[in-house]
Amino acid sequence: MVIVLKNEATHQQVKELVNWLEGYNVKTNLVEGVHSRIIGLIGDTVHMDIDTIEANECVEAVRRVQEPYKNANRKFHPDDTVLDIFGRKLGGDRLQVIAGPCSVESEKQIIETAIACKEAGATMLRGGAFKPRTSPYSFQGLRKEGIELLLKAKQETGLPIVTEVMSLEHLYMFSEVDVIQVGARNMQNFELLKALGRCDKPVLLKRGLSSTLEELLMSAEYIMSEGNSKVILCERGIRTFEPMTRNTLDISAIPLLKHKSHLPVVVDPSHATGISKLIEPMSLAAVAAGCDALEIEVHCDPKHALSDGAQQLTPDAFRKVMEKIKALAEFVGKPVDNAE
Amino acid sequence: MVIVLKNEATHQQVKELVNWLEGYNVKTNLVEGVHSRIIGLIGDTVHMDIDTIEANECVEAVRRVQEPYKNANRKFHPDDTVLDIFGRKLGGDRLQVIAGPCSVESEKQIIETAIACKEAGATMLRGGAFKPRTSPYSFQGLRKEGIELLLKAKQETGLPIVTEVMSLEHLYMFSEVDVIQVGARNMQNFELLKALGRCDKPVLLKRGLSSTLEELLMSAEYIMSEGNSKVILCERGIRTFEPMTRNTLDISAIPLLKHKSHLPVVVDPSHATGISKLIEPMSLAAVAAGCDALEIEVHCDPKHALSDGAQQLTPDAFRKVMEKIKALAEFVGKPVDNAE
Amino acid sequence: MVIVLKNEATHQQVKELVNWLEGYNVKTNLVEGVHSRIIGLIGDTVHMDIDTIEANECVEAVRRVQEPYKNANRKFHPDDTVLDIFGRKLGGDRLQVIAGPCSVESEKQIIETAIACKEAGATMLRGGAFKPRTSPYSFQGLRKEGIELLLKAKQETGLPIVTEVMSLEHLYMFSEVDVIQVGARNMQNFELLKALGRCDKPVLLKRGLSSTLEELLMSAEYIMSEGNSKVILCERGIRTFEPMTRNTLDISAIPLLKHKSHLPVVVDPSHATGISKLIEPMSLAAVAAGCDALEIEVHCDPKHALSDGAQQLTPDAFRKVMEKIKALAEFVGKPVDNAE
Amino acid sequence: MVIVLKNEATHQQVKELVNWLEGYNVKTNLVEGVHSRIIGLIGDTVHMDIDTIEANECVEAVRRVQEPYKNANRKFHPDDTVLDIFGRKLGGDRLQVIAGPCSVESEKQIIETAIACKEAGATMLRGGAFKPRTSPYSFQGLRKEGIELLLKAKQETGLPIVTEVMSLEHLYMFSEVDVIQVGARNMQNFELLKALGRCDKPVLLKRGLSSTLEELLMSAEYIMSEGNSKVILCERGIRTFEPMTRNTLDISAIPLLKHKSHLPVVVDPSHATGISKLIEPMSLAAVAAGCDALEIEVHCDPKHALSDGAQQLTPDAFRKVMEKIKALAEFVGKPVDNAE
Repeated sequence: MVIVLKNEATHQQVKELVNWLEGYNVKTNLVEGVHSRIIGLIGDTVHMDIDTIEANECVEAVRRVQEPYKNANRKFHPDDTVLDIFGRKLGGDRLQVIAGPCSVESEKQIIETAIACKEAGATMLRGGAFKPRTSPYSFQGLRKEGIELLLKAKQETGLPIVTEVMSLEHLYMFSEVDVIQVGARNMQNFELLKALGRCDKPVLLKRGLSSTLEELLMSAEYIMSEGNSKVILCERGIRTFEPMTRNTLDISAIPLLKHKSHLPVVVDPSHATGISKLIEPMSLAAVAAGCDALEIEVHCDPKHALSDGAQQLTPDAFRKVMEKIKALAEFVGKPVDNAE
Repeated sequence: MVIVLKNEATHQQVKELVNWLEGYNVKTNLVEGVHSRIIGLIGDTVHMDIDTIEANECVEAVRRVQEPYKNANRKFHPDDTVLDIFGRKLGGDRLQVIAGPCSVESEKQIIETAIACKEAGATMLRGGAFKPRTSPYSFQGLRKEGIELLLKAKQETGLPIVTEVMSLEHLYMFSEVDVIQVGARNMQNFELLKALGRCDKPVLLKRGLSSTLEELLMSAEYIMSEGNSKVILCERGIRTFEPMTRNTLDISAIPLLKHKSHLPVVVDPSHATGISKLIEPMSLAAVAAGCDALEIEVHCDPKHALSDGAQQLTPDAFRKVMEKIKALAEFVGKPVDNAE
Repeated sequence: MVIVLKNEATHQQVKELVNWLEGYNVKTNLVEGVHSRIIGLIGDTVHMDIDTIEANECVEAVRRVQEPYKNANRKFHPDDTVLDIFGRKLGGDRLQVIAGPCSVESEKQIIETAIACKEAGATMLRGGAFKPRTSPYSFQGLRKEGIELLLKAKQETGLPIVTEVMSLEHLYMFSEVDVIQVGARNMQNFELLKALGRCDKPVLLKRGLSSTLEELLMSAEYIMSEGNSKVILCERGIRTFEPMTRNTLDISAIPLLKHKSHLPVVVDPSHATGISKLIEPMSLAAVAAGCDALEIEVHCDPKHALSDGAQQLTPDAFRKVMEKIKALAEFVGKPVDNAE
Repeated sequence: MVIVLKNEATHQQVKELVNWLEGYNVKTNLVEGVHSRIIGLIGDTVHMDIDTIEANECVEAVRRVQEPYKNANRKFHPDDTVLDIFGRKLGGDRLQVIAGPCSVESEKQIIETAIACKEAGATMLRGGAFKPRTSPYSFQGLRKEGIELLLKAKQETGLPIVTEVMSLEHLYMFSEVDVIQVGARNMQNFELLKALGRCDKPVLLKRGLSSTLEELLMSAEYIMSEGNSKVILCERGIRTFEPMTRNTLDISAIPLLKHKSHLPVVVDPSHATGISKLIEPMSLAAVAAGCDALEIEVHCDPKHALSDGAQQLTPDAFRKVMEKIKALAEFVGKPVDNAE
């Protein structure tokens, strides 16, 4: 950490600041220049609060030099984390494709969609039982029944299931779920993150709509610091001023997250763009940029879907997209998983 | 709602679409032009999902014409909502000033700060017991003990208290709290909003870091649709590309929210800017633009604060800011409340 | 400037880097820590390119500590710059109000509007002769004739005139203009800025739609570094994800620019919001936050305006807004200028 | 175009509005609903100003239904535009790779870099002669001499050259340049665009840092409406709140621009990310998403570059990236051009 001092800071003030800083078990190094003075802090500064240091009247600015996350940091864990999800390896040399409807709507709908997804080559099944909807008047999901229907679909197809938790008091219903998803709007629901940190289940953590990559990694750190290291990072688009897409998919997040962290990286082109015809090019871009998995919305009848119709693919359209994904994944040396 | 049809849509497709739409109990009106055809929907479209309509193969785009919120909408409730908070009127002809520390840290700290705030003219006391922190290694708040200390400070000063809930399973601890705050990161924690909708307590709802004003109003609608109409809207800065301030305080949110809704509007210049010296000008700007209340961070000893030191005012600095706020509030015809 | 070294940097690499840096006439100070090493640079680093330093294979990151601007920097010029514009003082203890139509459309329109603005209390006249329009099919301005009409309006009313230049080859037409405006889209038209730096006329420089305050100050620096120190900074809204307003007016820019720089600060609520009913509250907010001038669009017949009709006030509406501005400006101790 | 009327609009007001609208040679269709009334406009609305319609006192909102651009619109020009640039076909079934240094610095530097680029497989040469720099104290380019050195490099290597114009009074120096580039900061320098519209040369138009895709297409329309239809669209990253990259490369712009327009689409991963190690993954993502060309910065000695060192590749690194690009381009059926 580097502290820039105000020009007018007195020697006495600086001395007091240094004494106070050293109380945090770090060494300090004062660098005096012509136009400015800075203090370099040496040691473990993860627990120090930048804002509190900036509150000191002789401080002009504070710059962090080290990343504030440890468990999620590749520097301390150079090898890729590879998760085993009901036999599927996520984060290794195979690409996983998580497909399924935005919402679970009925037994017929989820079973039919799951079978179609599997036939097309999907390796995991997604489906929303609890649905975070902007409007209280929109369909809110089948909740407990939705999870039960997903488990039936798993039995039918053998696909492990991924579904979203919206509140920690529902966690008990997720005991047979394979991957628990945390939605973008809950990325900084810290109480939920801590509770998930005490589970022994993979957590797919979606980047918030306006979250930085460092904040995403800090939210992963919340889960990991409680003991659960099975975290999957998910890029799903960020909010920008561009109105043509719902959000802007930040493809550069893939190589950056892989560089900064050892955790697997998933990309969700469906929510990012909100436009079904963009799913193919954005999926291919994500594979080319090195993602470990894709999460794609597929619905057996999108125009009668209860949510997000515009971005869900029909089984037919998904089959065509999957052919391209399979070929590209093979080409880049990370073929779509084929567990059987 | 207006539906723009694709050029290549066939008569048969359009007929089917119209039939399907009319199943939602709305009337349709097809307008055929040279370059484009549109369908106007007449009736209550609040329950209709734009995305699902856009999933139809003959639809190019859908534009909403009416606001998707009702309870929060001034069109249906022309008079200002005025809340009574332990004798203080929020939303009426008096300005409320909610002051206090970012976090409750100790009995001495909160009592001392509360007394100083009251002496300076604050009309309510804020203080965080549950603290949403980006890092799991930062101070997380005194939690239940923090609420108890706030209640002591209320007893000492007579100031009603405002404090944040982070998870619905903690709600039982808030029974004596005067105003329950929902933080920016929880603005779309819909399960929490619904639970608050079943309380009979004022809820101060902060705008998410990248939420639109319509989304803020939809989150208010979540609370109100469950029966609790005591919602307070809070502008606390949005995320932009500008690095000099932590966020960008959107002052235009004040007149817009007052125009669109009948709910009271609070402004938090402390979190918006993250810089204590900006609190005075931004508070004055907010009062000039017509806010109903300010929420300002004050700490008896900011440079030893456990969180957000850089943005908290000392009691002395707060006193000076309050003098200016009082004078301006008097001038604009909405004086700071003086309940005694 | 502070340079953070990569963990794996060798002593030889660091030595070479230090030698190379010292070739720029700065002193270096190497701080070695447990987890990281940093180099502090002491001296004038304004001419050093951060990107080039970051290109060095042993460098992890570079942080600037000093501002990269000098002429515009309050540290080196503590006193406020006060400009004399045809007898009006901008930047001092009087508030200036620049009013007038978006575009000059005809002699009748500009004279009628100018008289109405003056009667209401405006102190300068604005009007677009060259119009930057998103569409090539929109009205592009009367150009040279527009400037001539503005000069007639000046003769009629005594109001100094402010009008925008779009290209440096038109500069010769601006010899009798009082203030040359640079639009948001040209804030980084560096060739134009340099040409304006060689004029002896006040330049009103608008912040780009997505420019940081530091970039605005660097663009001011471009003008000033060529010899023209008569620069006026203008906040006119930045682009965010919020769709209700055209842009988001960043009121915190006012105190920040006044703090970082000695140049006068103008606020344009008309372009920032694009909504005429927001002009009053946003003007008052800007005055309360300490701006030196307002720039407001007024048109004698907005609904027949050739550009930006929705955001222009009628003379009647402007008169009412001016009454409030005058009263507030008086109250905050910076009354609207009254040169007569 | 669809006009939403205010609830309180009187019949007389609506009648006057309709009369006025029909003066623009469009037909109107009034749709009366329970909660709202709308007017649908039928005909060519490209010349109508939304803001002026919104200024009408009985109008609540105006929504455009048709795109406001024509020459750039795929609807009116279904076939891809293919440009011939000194024998290279851009926009067809070959991928072009434009490589070269950020700035032309010396004869040795540009010739050496050009040869290395060509050997690695680049098909065009880029190099900045006029440099838009944020700081007036940074290197501003060799200007006229820079163009002459580029022409020497063209002679040496046979590569057509791409270089940026910053001001229209320099245009006469570009007569032998193959592609004239317009930088992001000049995307809405409308006078420059019009002048380029009167040239008979391909123009590579970069998306502004905060420009929407529609605005980019409108700027293309400026050039095309003056007669020059040889426009190349370039995505180079947009400004977001994410600090890890300089900008966020919007890969979804590629399929969207190809869908909305017939013009070729180029992607510049170097400026978008500002980080040389991201150039490989982002280039591959862009190729997978269907771009027509890449523009990549290569410098024979990046750590002594006079600008943008951190994002320029060494010839060695570029060779490795090109091997991957060539293989992927071949795989997706759009091989890198090989004109010889």
